[in-house]
Amino acid sequence: MPRVSQDHLDARKRQILDGARSCFARHGYEGATVRRLEEATGLSRGAIFHHFRDKESLFLALAEDDVLRMTDIVAEQGLVQVMRELIAPPAEGDHPADWLGTRLEVSRRLRTDPEFRARWAARSEQLTKATRQRLLRQREAGNLRDDVDVDVLTSFLELVLEGLVSHLAMGLPADDMDPVLDLVEETVRRHRRGF
Amino acid sequence: MPRVSQDHLDARKRQILDGARSCFARHGYEGATVRRLEEATGLSRGAIFHHFRDKESLFLALAEDDVLRMTDIVAEQGLVQVMRELIAPPAEGDHPADWLGTRLEVSRRLRTDPEFRARWAARSEQLTKATRQRLLRQREAGNLRDDVDVDVLTSFLELVLEGLVSHLAMGLPADDMDPVLDLVEETVRRHRRGF
Repeated sequence: MPRVSQDHLDARKRQILDGARSCFARHGYEGATVRRLEEATGLSRGAIFHHFRDKESLFLALAEDDVLRMTDIVAEQGLVQVMRELIAPPAEGDHPADWLGTRLEVSRRLRTDPEFRARWAARSEQLTKATRQRLLRQREAGNLRDDVDVDVLTSFLELVLEGLVSHLAMGLPADDMDPVLDLVEETVRRHRRGF
Repeated sequence: MPRVSQDHLDARKRQILDGARSCFARHGYEGATVRRLEEATGLSRGAIFHHFRDKESLFLALAEDDVLRMTDIVAEQGLVQVMRELIAPPAEGDHPADWLGTRLEVSRRLRTDPEFRARWAARSEQLTKATRQRLLRQREAGNLRDDVDVDVLTSFLELVLEGLVSHLAMGLPADDMDPVLDLVEETVRRHRRGF
């Protein structure tokens, strides 16, 4: 029954991706050795690399998976919600904070690896597009300020997200970031609170 | 005459710092070889390392020098002006765009080197303090919004600066950033333009 096989395959891939995500988050890309990936996924290296050609392919699958999940959140709740999940993971759910590990490695490669930069452009464009579309819908609904171009608001939000990733990458505390993200959110909205 | 000696010493140090700054900006820290530092400064390695113990000391002197210059700009014109100079160096003046090279190396070390992070904390605090003081003066002058805490506004501006540095580090274009920085500036001001 090929359908069952496909389900089994998907579940196994999901198990590997979830384990690998927390492994990259904890140890970084370089530190995520095959032995640690085995521990984190509960699978042998044979099983892991049956599904993913090598560590690089595994990382890219993870990064693409994360972009899809971020895109979903953006579509429903906006880019600021992605930022909030970066700094304050919910107690339940599937470890949104682990995004940071992948995101940091993506940022590092974008800075140091022009080839990766070219390959990543399409993925990055997905998130920009989702952010832009969300803002356009918000504008139609009358929730967005209308004196600033949507492209400018999109770039603004992306710039703050990148700043937040960088902030966290430097090991700086994020426990005072909530009011800053409130300010960011309010900046793109129609009305200023308290005015 | 020790006074003349001191002036000569200062001028020589300045010559080395200026040359090294553009050398780091062009080639990065690792790529700024002693040979390239000689070319950029127009001085022999003997002369350079008479004034600075090693490349590391030279880099730190440069980074501290840049923080002082950024602090001066912040005091007079605010942190957004620092961002504007990062993306659009004036035709005249002493190469403010070269700050980027130093700033990127500082960011990289903050991410990867906990010891540097501890040593750098005091420098970084200077800039935060200058930003905060500038905002307090602006608030007193009635130019700043008064419904958001100055610490929150300070963190907001620093987050955007970090995002901008990261954006530039990834080789992304900054030619569409001016309206974004206008939005950032307006966000901390008392009145929204166009309202």
